[in-house]
Formats: sequence, structure tokens, C-alpha cells
Amino acid sequence: MATELDPDRALADLRALRDLTEDDRGAQRVAWTDTWAQARVWLRERLADLPVRVDTDEAGNLWAVLEGASPETVVLGSHIDSVPDGGWLDGALGVLGGLEVLRTLAESGTPPPVTVALVDWADEEGARFGRSLLGSGLATRTLHPRDVRDVTDRDGVALADALAAHGVDLHAAPAARARLEPAVAYLELHIEQGPVLERDGLSVGVVTGTAGVVRHAVRIRGQAVQGGGFPMEARRDALVAGARLVLAVREAARDARSRATVGAITVRPAIPTAVPGLCELTIDQRHPDADALAAMVNEVHDAAAHIAVDERVAIDFERIWAIAPVAFDDDLIALADETASEVTGVSARLFSGALHDAAAVASAGVPAVMLFVQSAGGISHAPEEDTAPEHLAAGVRTLARLADRVIARSARPPG
Amino acid sequence: MATELDPDRALADLRALRDLTEDDRGAQRVAWTDTWAQARVWLRERLADLPVRVDTDEAGNLWAVLEGASPETVVLGSHIDSVPDGGWLDGALGVLGGLEVLRTLAESGTPPPVTVALVDWADEEGARFGRSLLGSGLATRTLHPRDVRDVTDRDGVALADALAAHGVDLHAAPAARARLEPAVAYLELHIEQGPVLERDGLSVGVVTGTAGVVRHAVRIRGQAVQGGGFPMEARRDALVAGARLVLAVREAARDARSRATVGAITVRPAIPTAVPGLCELTIDQRHPDADALAAMVNEVHDAAAHIAVDERVAIDFERIWAIAPVAFDDDLIALADETASEVTGVSARLFSGALHDAAAVASAGVPAVMLFVQSAGGISHAPEEDTAPEHLAAGVRTLARLADRVIARSARPPG
Repeated sequence: MATELDPDRALADLRALRDLTEDDRGAQRVAWTDTWAQARVWLRERLADLPVRVDTDEAGNLWAVLEGASPETVVLGSHIDSVPDGGWLDGALGVLGGLEVLRTLAESGTPPPVTVALVDWADEEGARFGRSLLGSGLATRTLHPRDVRDVTDRDGVALADALAAHGVDLHAAPAARARLEPAVAYLELHIEQGPVLERDGLSVGVVTGTAGVVRHAVRIRGQAVQGGGFPMEARRDALVAGARLVLAVREAARDARSRATVGAITVRPAIPTAVPGLCELTIDQRHPDADALAAMVNEVHDAAAHIAVDERVAIDFERIWAIAPVAFDDDLIALADETASEVTGVSARLFSGALHDAAAVASAGVPAVMLFVQSAGGISHAPEEDTAPEHLAAGVRTLARLADRVIARSARPPG
Repeated sequence: MATELDPDRALADLRALRDLTEDDRGAQRVAWTDTWAQARVWLRERLADLPVRVDTDEAGNLWAVLEGASPETVVLGSHIDSVPDGGWLDGALGVLGGLEVLRTLAESGTPPPVTVALVDWADEEGARFGRSLLGSGLATRTLHPRDVRDVTDRDGVALADALAAHGVDLHAAPAARARLEPAVAYLELHIEQGPVLERDGLSVGVVTGTAGVVRHAVRIRGQAVQGGGFPMEARRDALVAGARLVLAVREAARDARSRATVGAITVRPAIPTAVPGLCELTIDQRHPDADALAAMVNEVHDAAAHIAVDERVAIDFERIWAIAPVAFDDDLIALADETASEVTGVSARLFSGALHDAAAVASAGVPAVMLFVQSAGGISHAPEEDTAPEHLAAGVRTLARLADRVIARSARPPG
């Protein structure tokens, strides 16, 4: 039974990986770099002692498969890659928590009733090439090689060439879909990357799905003039219009499940004495309900139209990215809820505003669910990213017990 | 009489200077560069035929002096330097309009009753070293060598070294003050750099003074978190606070003579999915009335204090520059008003939101006044900067007639 695992071994693995891949500025396990490859060599060493089949699929995802009595497979997974200057838990917790589950099952000596696999998805973060969920997207065919054919990094290196340097042929990647054919469930443990569980005093929460996302690049064109010479009413100030838009974006996110962020803004000519003639900003809006997301996006478009008239500027929206909300599997959610209550005495359901590999897997029709453990201060993607050991242990225990239940359920004949 | 001058000669000079110093991106007469030095060589060539004494003072200002019957001196001036990618009129109009006045007076054959001087102030724009009114500031001792001792350009070249390369010893610069000892009046013709005269259908306006300026660098510190994971109410979004401040800055400039500009803004980490944890912006506030300016500045400080509480961010103001309003000479304003009415049939008074060398001269106790000619679209500091020939001609004619009046008035015994 995975339930008998020792969470301290998972914590020791997390710390060892941190020591191996962190520098002064944080974790540096950026996908398709040497440090990332080094992390995977380390992971393979950890797997070498277990009775598992280890290889990478056509999309570069690393699989460790513990054969069970039946080919039906319960998959545990996450990603070992990080953002630059990242933290020690984002992605790594799910992989090394899953490793500990696999190790405990293997140590029991008897094959499990169904096959159990651990997957380390390649390049969840998209840090180098700006395309997140790369490995899971390709393997689930929610992303196609043609979508990323022309993508390059900041140094002009083509994504396809970087993959090839790590033994991955981009055009063959969709063949990785075959790995998911026997999958009957997908379980992913991850840090929350938000403040909700900490605020509510909970170790673990059950994730009901991931929010839909609509991201726009906005360009506001006014007129650049000397601030000293121009009366206020004669101005066409692109930044004043941008400031109104920033507030309209927040205003439209009044529903508690809304998320809306203007993360980047620039102006030109960017001189203290010149009224900005150009303002460019990004708007990232999210909601777990597709209709609510569409309404929120429309509200901001309408606000922009009013602002453009008021301020005599032109405001152009370019939709640069969008993904529909993904709901996780109802049965798995209910099972996870029971399990979290058993392990921690309490459970809570929350949705994920951030994307995860589980969303790609669920989109491909595999029943999936995620568990979140609380994040200190909600901080992630930074060296300060942290979670207290007791919450990490509770998360790994919940994952193990949930895996046991799902394995047992999958082994039973339907009905 | 200067009144008999031919404005077309001034226009021809302006066009010749443009051809000499403009490239695809605009005028490049940045002070302390080769192109600027070349413009001055060209100006000296224009002066060589006249019975004037030409030299530079200790602060690098170029003087051309037409001896009159008395040493009392009426000074005409402006600056030949431009911003990078600048226009053909800003500064050059005053210098070459003044040159044409001097030329016409010289051509009459008889020395004028008082001495008449033309000054080309060095580095009005401060484009390379970020310190405007450099030559006029040093010569009027409103700026001291110690204030700019440690200033360098983007390439790390010290201001003092750049001046030395053009024959100017920064520490000797205050000696240039002697040049202004005999000055009884200072007249400067300039483009408006604003839309007021064009809007009101006027060629020429009389400038009553320059606005006071208070400039702040503002740093807003919130918390950088992942936008997806963070509920809106848990955020401490530095850009939302910055957007509110941008609008508060405009709100506080409701009086018609107020000017307020947020010209530069940056955020960090500047990623579409991350709530900005840091927002930095500049606030430039101006008003011709010192009390009104102080009230406007205070209003924004108060607004910032409220925003900081509301948004749970820290907002720090650093005052990076300030100058008091400067009022021009009442008698010269009245004389300029009459003159503009005679030449153009109408006159208007306006204040300057932008600084000019005349403000330094007036601050040093020399009676001063400026004339503005209308600017097409109010555009300046750009290659599109332009004024129709008839307005330029009206401006030069008004300057000439005003010079004649001031010369005549200065020659008469007081009383």
C-alpha cells in the first residue's frame, strides 16, 4: 500500500534536488538546459533501484512504469523543470511525491493490481520558449508541432533544434499519445501558488479544475507632446488611458472566482517631461466558468471603447493566447475530498487559476484530479517559494492514499 | 532700425541650418557633440561679415556684440542646441531671428544708441547630461559647477570632460556672469511648443513667465505574485496603485494653468502572468503660481497616502528636481504686448510651461521677456516640429520691433 510511505523520504529527495539545481538566485531547472538534463539524470538514478521501466516518450516526457496485474494504468505526474530563479517545490513536489508512491508500491514486493506510472512532463513552464505545457500538450495532442514550428528563444535558437539536442524529434512528438491509451486516472500533487489554503489554515485542498484564460496585448495610441507646453484638456495621453484601463480590468474581476492581471506596461517616449504617446500593456483574465470569463472579457472591451472616446486615443486589442476552462473528474474529486479529510481532518475544494499539466491530460479525456498543498505567502516562481514540512508531508500522504484508492477502484470490475 | 529687417533672410538661415544638422531622424545639434560644434562654426561664419565682436564666455555661451553709443546692452538670445532627433525651430528660431535683428542694425551703418548683443546659450536642452539650462544657468549663477561636478552621460563621460573638449573649464564658468553686468533687457523669441496660439488663431503671444516645476520619482512596492493563483482581494498590486496615482495626478491639475505629467512608468517583474510587485513612475507638476503649485503637489501626496492604505502598498516620493516660477518683467511684457498688436493686429499673454534660458536670465535680475510663435500641432522635440512661414515672419518682425523699442527706451535718460 502506498499509504504506508514515508513522506520524509520525499522531503529528502526534494532537498537533494534543490542542492543539485539551485544557485544564489534560485532553482535553475529550465527545460532544455544542462541543469534540467542533470536533474533528469539524478531522477533516473533514483529510479534505477526500482523494478520499473524507465524511458522518454516521443515528446520528451520521462516515464517510469511499474507493471501491475492489469495494463490499465494509474498515472502520477508533474514536471521537474522550473522557471529561471525559481523555487524548489513547483513541479518537483509532484514528481518526487509520485516517486515516493511508486517506490513504496514497488517495495511491497507484489505487483499492484493495475499498472502505476510516474511521468515527468517536459517543459511545463515554457520559460525558455514561451510555450507552457509543451510536453504534456504534445503528448495529449492539445498542442501540435506546427503550433511551435517557428518558435525561437531569445538567442534565436529554434525550439525544434533545442528539443533535438535533447533527443526529441518535434515532428514525431504526437506519437507520445499512445502512452496515455491505458491511462484510467491521472493524479497530480502541486503547491497552490496562491494564499487560499494558508489563509484558511489548511494543508491540502482538492482542485476542481483550471480556469480558462484569455490574454490580450493592448496598444494605446495617443499623442506624444511636451508636458510643459500642453494644457491638460488638449492632451491625448496614452498612459492616462492605460491607467483607466488597468482599473477597468480590476473592476471587471469583482466575482470571487475571477482573476485579472495587468502584468506588463510600457510607455513611449518614456521621458519625465513628455506626455506618453504610446502605452502598451498586457491583460490576463481568468475564470473557471467559460461564460463568466467571456462576460469579463467583454466588459473590459466595452470599458476600453469608452476610454478611447473620452481620452481621444486609439485602443487596439490583440488576443495573444486563450484556453478554455478545464473541469477535473467528478468522481476523482469526490474521492480526493474524502481522502484529504481522512489524512488532514478537513478538506476544501478550490480551482486553479494557474495552468497545470493535469489540464492537458484532462482535455485529452483522461479522468484527472489535482491536490494542492499550501504555499507560504502564496509565493512561487521565486527562491522564496516554500511550504512547511508538515504540509508537504500531508500532501504526499494524501497523494499516496488517493493513489491506493484509485488503484483499488480501477482493479475492481465496473459496477 | 531693426524693424526694417527682412524675415525671409532669417527663414533662409533656419533652412540652411536644418540642411546642415538634420538627418533622417531629425535635428542632431546635441550640445557638446560634433554636429553642435559644426552648427556654431556655421553661425560664426554668418557673423563674420558683421561689425560685431564674437567670442565665447567662460560657460561656453557664444556672444556677438554690436557696440553702441553706450555700454548698456540689450541682449537677444536663445540656443542652437537641440534634442536628439529634434526639430528645426526649437532654440534656432531665437538665435537666427536675433541674428537677423543684429544684421539689420549693423547694416544701417550707424552704431545703435546702446550696445546690442546676441547670445547662443550652450546646452539649453540638457539632452546629453540631463541638466537643462546649463550655459545660461552657469552664467547667471543659478547653477553652480559643484551641482554638476559628478554628472556623466550614458557612456560614462564626465560633463566636465565634455566641456573641456569644447574649450570650457567648468570651474571657471561662473566668471561668465560678467557678461550680463551691462544687460538692461533680455529678449527671446521661441516656438510655443504647445497648442494655445494655434487654437486661438494667433501668430505671436507674449510670455508672462515660466511655470514652477516640481518633479518626483515615485516607487510603489507591493508584492509580486502569480496572477493565476491570487484572488483579487489578496493582492498588493503595485501597478493598480500606480494607475490610481496617475489619475490622481491628472485630477489635481484641474486649474487651467496647471500642468501634470506622468511621462515614465515601469513595473517588475513585467511578466503578463505576474502581479507587479514594483511600479516606478515620474510625476512632473507645473504651475506659474508657487502657491498653486505647492497645493497641487500636496494634493497628490495626500492621494498617494490614501492609495497606499487602500492597496496595502508602500509609496515613496523622491523629489528629483524643482524650480520656482519666474515672472518676466512687467514693463517689457506691456511693451511686447503693444508690439505684437502692432505687427499682427492682436496680442495675447500666456505663460510657458516649459523652461527657457530667459528664466535663468530673469532669475539673475535682468529684465526679460519672451515672445512665442505658434507651433503646428504644438509638436516640438521631434522632426515634425514646424511653424508656417507667415507665423515665423510675424515672430521675427515682432522681435525686431520690440528690440527697436527697448533700444530706444534704454537710450533715453530715465524719467
